[in-house]
Amino acid sequence: KGRFTVASEDGAYGLSIGLAFHEDFGGFFNSGPRPGEARGAFNSFTTNMRRLRIPFSFRYKNWVAAVTPDFGANHNDGYVGLYEGNLNYTGLHNTILTVGYFQPRVTEEDSESSNDFFTLERPSITDMVRNIAAGDARFSVGALHYEKRWWIAGYFTGQEWGHRNASDMGSTYYGGGNGNTMDSQTGAMLRVAGRPVATKDWDVHTGISSISSFRQACNAANANATSCSRSTSFGQRPEFDIGEANLSATGGISNAAQVWAAGPELGVRWKRLIVKGEYYHVGVQRNGPGLKSAGFQGWYGSAAYTLFGNPRMYNEKEGAFGAPGVSENQEFDPARNHWGALEVVGHYSVIDLNSRLNDAYAKNVIRGGQQTVWTGGLNWYPNRHFRFMLDYSHFIVSRSEQATNIYGRTGNSIAARVQAGF
Amino acid sequence: KGRFTVASEDGAYGLSIGLAFHEDFGGFFNSGPRPGEARGAFNSFTTNMRRLRIPFSFRYKNWVAAVTPDFGANHNDGYVGLYEGNLNYTGLHNTILTVGYFQPRVTEEDSESSNDFFTLERPSITDMVRNIAAGDARFSVGALHYEKRWWIAGYFTGQEWGHRNASDMGSTYYGGGNGNTMDSQTGAMLRVAGRPVATKDWDVHTGISSISSFRQACNAANANATSCSRSTSFGQRPEFDIGEANLSATGGISNAAQVWAAGPELGVRWKRLIVKGEYYHVGVQRNGPGLKSAGFQGWYGSAAYTLFGNPRMYNEKEGAFGAPGVSENQEFDPARNHWGALEVVGHYSVIDLNSRLNDAYAKNVIRGGQQTVWTGGLNWYPNRHFRFMLDYSHFIVSRSEQATNIYGRTGNSIAARVQAGF
Amino acid sequence: KGRFTVASEDGAYGLSIGLAFHEDFGGFFNSGPRPGEARGAFNSFTTNMRRLRIPFSFRYKNWVAAVTPDFGANHNDGYVGLYEGNLNYTGLHNTILTVGYFQPRVTEEDSESSNDFFTLERPSITDMVRNIAAGDARFSVGALHYEKRWWIAGYFTGQEWGHRNASDMGSTYYGGGNGNTMDSQTGAMLRVAGRPVATKDWDVHTGISSISSFRQACNAANANATSCSRSTSFGQRPEFDIGEANLSATGGISNAAQVWAAGPELGVRWKRLIVKGEYYHVGVQRNGPGLKSAGFQGWYGSAAYTLFGNPRMYNEKEGAFGAPGVSENQEFDPARNHWGALEVVGHYSVIDLNSRLNDAYAKNVIRGGQQTVWTGGLNWYPNRHFRFMLDYSHFIVSRSEQATNIYGRTGNSIAARVQAGF
Repeated sequence: KGRFTVASEDGAYGLSIGLAFHEDFGGFFNSGPRPGEARGAFNSFTTNMRRLRIPFSFRYKNWVAAVTPDFGANHNDGYVGLYEGNLNYTGLHNTILTVGYFQPRVTEEDSESSNDFFTLERPSITDMVRNIAAGDARFSVGALHYEKRWWIAGYFTGQEWGHRNASDMGSTYYGGGNGNTMDSQTGAMLRVAGRPVATKDWDVHTGISSISSFRQACNAANANATSCSRSTSFGQRPEFDIGEANLSATGGISNAAQVWAAGPELGVRWKRLIVKGEYYHVGVQRNGPGLKSAGFQGWYGSAAYTLFGNPRMYNEKEGAFGAPGVSENQEFDPARNHWGALEVVGHYSVIDLNSRLNDAYAKNVIRGGQQTVWTGGLNWYPNRHFRFMLDYSHFIVSRSEQATNIYGRTGNSIAARVQAGF
Repeated sequence: KGRFTVASEDGAYGLSIGLAFHEDFGGFFNSGPRPGEARGAFNSFTTNMRRLRIPFSFRYKNWVAAVTPDFGANHNDGYVGLYEGNLNYTGLHNTILTVGYFQPRVTEEDSESSNDFFTLERPSITDMVRNIAAGDARFSVGALHYEKRWWIAGYFTGQEWGHRNASDMGSTYYGGGNGNTMDSQTGAMLRVAGRPVATKDWDVHTGISSISSFRQACNAANANATSCSRSTSFGQRPEFDIGEANLSATGGISNAAQVWAAGPELGVRWKRLIVKGEYYHVGVQRNGPGLKSAGFQGWYGSAAYTLFGNPRMYNEKEGAFGAPGVSENQEFDPARNHWGALEVVGHYSVIDLNSRLNDAYAKNVIRGGQQTVWTGGLNWYPNRHFRFMLDYSHFIVSRSEQATNIYGRTGNSIAARVQAGF
Repeated sequence: KGRFTVASEDGAYGLSIGLAFHEDFGGFFNSGPRPGEARGAFNSFTTNMRRLRIPFSFRYKNWVAAVTPDFGANHNDGYVGLYEGNLNYTGLHNTILTVGYFQPRVTEEDSESSNDFFTLERPSITDMVRNIAAGDARFSVGALHYEKRWWIAGYFTGQEWGHRNASDMGSTYYGGGNGNTMDSQTGAMLRVAGRPVATKDWDVHTGISSISSFRQACNAANANATSCSRSTSFGQRPEFDIGEANLSATGGISNAAQVWAAGPELGVRWKRLIVKGEYYHVGVQRNGPGLKSAGFQGWYGSAAYTLFGNPRMYNEKEGAFGAPGVSENQEFDPARNHWGALEVVGHYSVIDLNSRLNDAYAKNVIRGGQQTVWTGGLNWYPNRHFRFMLDYSHFIVSRSEQATNIYGRTGNSIAARVQAGF
């Protein structure tokens, strides 16, 4: 069960190689623009290698180097990047000390492995919160500790891998910077979770996640500039990450001194059913004459019911819920009438990117739009390493200042994923 | 023999890691432009990592995830890409069901492993046909089935990995799209092959390959466009893929509704000699007032004779011929007067990219030029995993509308390859 | 000890997988520009994945294919490249024959593994010399041979991997060319080293390194150009490779026919102390009316003293010194009062990029500036596979023609590295 591992006979050395393979395909329908709006890239059918990670782990006694190349990344595949590259010390009980490019986990949703998600994508608000100062391949120094009933982790964080690089500004990898970063971001995150109820039929999860970028990156216009400036922006796609345009986005928010977010987590398991929800407020401190802070928010509620196979259980090491399981004697085998595991899932997800719409000073008015997404889906697990997912989503986005969304826009998508995890 | 594999004791799990390493070096001579033509990138000496693939295969029982990073790709190395990333079910007899980024094999030449090619490059026509809707890292859903005397495969296909991505438009990887694809390509391919004669001294291979892009990708000029358009183009280098310019190329063909190709395959082995040939017609359906369909074609004939070592034999699983073999007791060892295997090869390859040259309506006239390439070469195999190749080519290209080829152009190249395959 | 290896029972086959992980973080202080100078990217705190290499070695008997992807590279991480991809024959005594993308080692400093460096970066002059015609992923055909008391290697060299590629001109990988290289570079290098004294307490190393680019690459302005031209340039950062600007740089040197460098190596070990130094002259032959050759130079002296743990010893296979060692019973374990190994290091490094400052013909005057760097540091090795480094540097650069350095500039950096090597 799990990753392929080669170890020395005395146990001092271990090399393991794993896989996270998520390939998506599908498209949009009845998502067209109104007259005067840009069409936007809403393909009727296309494909995306959402994740293709090959985790390598090199261990010598209590010291571990974790390196994970990624041959997929969100939106438009075609990039090769680094999901993580970090060093770890595991010599303390139930504790992992980490330094290097890492994914610090913030929010319950983000604490789950992407192999375990209910639907293809995280609810928008959790994606928005994690990217403030955590997310993939973020330079991190910190630790996590877990016990049967609680979980805590805190990290100081810096830039993401490649984030000063100008080679492609729109991508997860190779991106975000303009090649003229004069001062990188610094931030931190803290997550605390508890599990007040843990019985055979019931699990209750509660937690608080918080995150802050103390100092946004300071970027110059070009290599010969004499000064640099700090800004931020937020935007989210309609929760199907296959190249589609942002309908809800703030555009650049100038003079951003600090960015922070915090909020509660709640999750309940009853037998084969899990229901959970989270809410986060996001604040941007701005410095400059007449500028006020900006505030955004989002929340979601989701549910999963396992029709057959082993239900989703609580994962103490993650402080989050896991995926349904398939015992070896339940694996897909039509000749023996074995069908693996099947579950039905759904979520309701809202993100509000409007701030101070009525402020007298135009620079304080940010109209990023409010986006609501309803998603329902089915997940089939033929065995413990493979999964097939099918989601239907309907999205409603109020008008923003994007060319694709001048009058408010609605749409629908059908999305499928084939997945392998080792 | 073959790939390095680690398996669990009960055989349920297997991880294998292989290698396809093809590094080319060489140059052009007497290939200069006529006065007024652009020089073109015909290096007198340069190098190219043509393929550097590390195939990882993760297996759990009958389910296999195949992932192959590629650190070389045609023309100008320097890209890192994905050759394949797909999931397979192998639980049916002599059958493989596949979904994901894959290379569906179309034409006999393309059905051979690139480790087995006679000359460094495929004949142009087979490269042109495969790229219509198959080729590397193409999203595919389908199956292949083989028996001792016949072979069949069919796939529905979508876009290639990274093909919506704008990051580099000229490359195999990261390329082809402009970042504003509003609707991806969909297509399909079908190949059927038979082996009417299969004796110790004789093998006869026949087959038919067909391919179609039902709907070309629809690309917009920029992210804020209100509409998109469908087009295609064809171009081939002089069969030495080391950064040289296309002399034969159609330029963009607008209003391309569908693109298709079909043609016969024939191959004969007699003892140590193989002779084979293929012909394909390529058609482009165009929609628009006054526009007629465009038609192109190409063919090749090639031969290989194994001077010493084991001759090329038929590979039932591929429905195509394999490479010469080296038994362990024939491996290169001058002290024992063992020299591995040596073969002499040659091919004659034509591609005709002219269509309706005399049509009254200028948009129907496509002058891509006709290219003929004569190639001869030697291949030496010191053992079953390594190969050294040396090719000489002479090419003749009639005038096209490329700046490098205004008056018709001829030239010569010397090309070498060092190869390792595991 | 060393890389993870899987071998067949008869020893004919071997696959090994290793790791070189170097992640840097730190920043600059009191490095600001004078009024009128560009600020330059001197981050107060940022991070860089300096190297993240996963070496794969596929062996069949005496034939080895070595392939090393790299997920870090200098300056701004975010690139994925190829550190090496080559074929080797090891069937001759103490000799390795190599063809393919390789790092030929020139200068003593460059002959050390980057896992063994005294300070985070090489002295500037050795980096400048190696990049003339050696360095990472350079196409090479040649051999090395070593004995207990001497070492020799020579390679014919061509372009670097990706160097014709236009996708990113400023990077180590994907870079340097403009996509219109009409003729690639050709060159060669030769290094000879001896070890006249080799006792328990003393080692003396001497050597000579030489390198030449016989013919610089010929680049055209665009794909339709009718001619191309040959040039070169030199520039070095202040020896902390974390995205900072060059203060010392020549700018383009046109009409460069040939480039060469040569100089002596000297190193002495006395018990736990190593002192070493090198000097190189760099010459550029230029062709054109009135143009004279340009000349540059550089040198460094460095020292390392091992406070506890095993001292640095001579490595015969590299013809260079290695890193301190940690015996298994000295590994970090506070409970047993074991602390691994600790050393103190320092270097003084000068590079002079001024040539013919008083020449009457302006095209012969090259004012690249003179850069001096003082560095001191501590290196801690908890065990044989992990290392932590801390360096302080002070740099002084005389005025050049860079916008960042109009009046001469000084500065300071604090840099740390976490390292794993398998």
